[in-house]
Amino acid sequence: MSAQSFGTRLQQAVADRGPIVAGIDPHAALLEAWGLPDTPAGLAEFSRVGLEAVAGQVAAIKPQSAFFERHGSAGVAVLEELLAEARSASVLTILDVKRGDIGSTMAAYAQAHLRPGAPLEADAITVSPYLGAGSLDPAVELALDSGKGLFMLALTSNPDGPRIQHARDFHDTPVALHVARHAEDVGAGTENRWGSVGLVVGATVGDAFTRLGLAEATTSAPILAPGFGAQGAGPAQLTEVFGESAGRTLVSLSRGLLAAGPDPQRLRQAAAALRMHYS
Amino acid sequence: MSAQSFGTRLQQAVADRGPIVAGIDPHAALLEAWGLPDTPAGLAEFSRVGLEAVAGQVAAIKPQSAFFERHGSAGVAVLEELLAEARSASVLTILDVKRGDIGSTMAAYAQAHLRPGAPLEADAITVSPYLGAGSLDPAVELALDSGKGLFMLALTSNPDGPRIQHARDFHDTPVALHVARHAEDVGAGTENRWGSVGLVVGATVGDAFTRLGLAEATTSAPILAPGFGAQGAGPAQLTEVFGESAGRTLVSLSRGLLAAGPDPQRLRQAAAALRMHYS
Repeated sequence: MSAQSFGTRLQQAVADRGPIVAGIDPHAALLEAWGLPDTPAGLAEFSRVGLEAVAGQVAAIKPQSAFFERHGSAGVAVLEELLAEARSASVLTILDVKRGDIGSTMAAYAQAHLRPGAPLEADAITVSPYLGAGSLDPAVELALDSGKGLFMLALTSNPDGPRIQHARDFHDTPVALHVARHAEDVGAGTENRWGSVGLVVGATVGDAFTRLGLAEATTSAPILAPGFGAQGAGPAQLTEVFGESAGRTLVSLSRGLLAAGPDPQRLRQAAAALRMHYS
Repeated sequence: MSAQSFGTRLQQAVADRGPIVAGIDPHAALLEAWGLPDTPAGLAEFSRVGLEAVAGQVAAIKPQSAFFERHGSAGVAVLEELLAEARSASVLTILDVKRGDIGSTMAAYAQAHLRPGAPLEADAITVSPYLGAGSLDPAVELALDSGKGLFMLALTSNPDGPRIQHARDFHDTPVALHVARHAEDVGAGTENRWGSVGLVVGATVGDAFTRLGLAEATTSAPILAPGFGAQGAGPAQLTEVFGESAGRTLVSLSRGLLAAGPDPQRLRQAAAALRMHYS
């Protein structure tokens, strides 16, 4: 058992440094805008500058694994370095991998990212519950034992998301609510202490978070919310969309922040300004 | 545009070498049973022996990415080698990664695995539709353009699976049927030619494949079916569960086959016997 749970560490980070989570998404267009090659070396420079600029101004960084995996094992080695450097700098890492499987395979994904000492160790990962929220339990178990965390996909605002996330099971429970209840149940949060299993909910889902019952169901689970900035949501959405959960909501920004690069000074100022804007 | 679609290549492989898909799942227990260390070197030996033994007796191999990712970039480098060796030996590869995201991130996962020349290039990958079947379209597009394929998670037999997969949307359509219809729509199959976008359906889902309408909805999509062997299903389930789709169903076997190792001769005999058993 780690000394502190992920929920507690995250809650403290937000209290100390505000609610921004900075995406580290080295996609081809952004690398080009930064004048960097679309190669593992380009990714490494992008990651180094991004991490240094936002450290101290954000609750966590959120590298998007897909952009590293595009370059195969060499790209994955860059991701290992980024995660290790963030750990050295005491910056929390939420690795966006959206993994989801069952049994020993789900356990293997958890070991890949949540086992202390693993090459790709992060503080938390995103996971996908298409196989049922309970299928993620092998990862929940390792997370809680290791002071790590999970964010389960719940509600997204892309056009096709509601087809599945709003669908109702044989108890008339919406899929996203089933996921939210499970996250709250297993996350080991209390009235005043955040749980270690959170949800991913888009900041542009309108009233779905309250209407489908997720607001009521989640009292300690942290919310990782993409959709701010370039995608349309602003500070008003924190309370409009998330209500009483606004205080547990992480403002996930990628392009809206990274577009300020590659100059480290401008990037640092942008992170500081966004922190003020959303605090 | 590749000369031949993935669906056509897969159909030919099944006609030539039977319906078995051999999992390459180097999990810790299996490595130990084979007398191999749980290290990248152990994974490499496991992969080399497994591939050599089953080549010629199976329609495809299916490496499970999680077991390689457990070892970080060094494990991913072993996966790259396995995929390259399979390509050299003209063995089709279905990389089991269950990726699922939206927009440019989904495109990046597709580029990681379906772009000719990518370090982790496979012939097909498994994908997860929690964000809606349409969210996978960036991968569909690259797959069809490159002669590659996808298998979308549809129905699984783990206890929690039906909570989401049987849930019904606002048109009263079960989630799994929404996925199946999308796979059939976009897979570019015809009456006599398999599509390049298939489904993952557990061989132990009972009557759900027909009862929820997936059997009727899929006339050209190939079906990747885990659950045979150790997990309980046998040749009878091919027709009981899949009905008229039985001829398009791939019998996915992992432990049931790999347990015959590490002796290459015994492994080869096991693959040949399973091919006879399910043909």
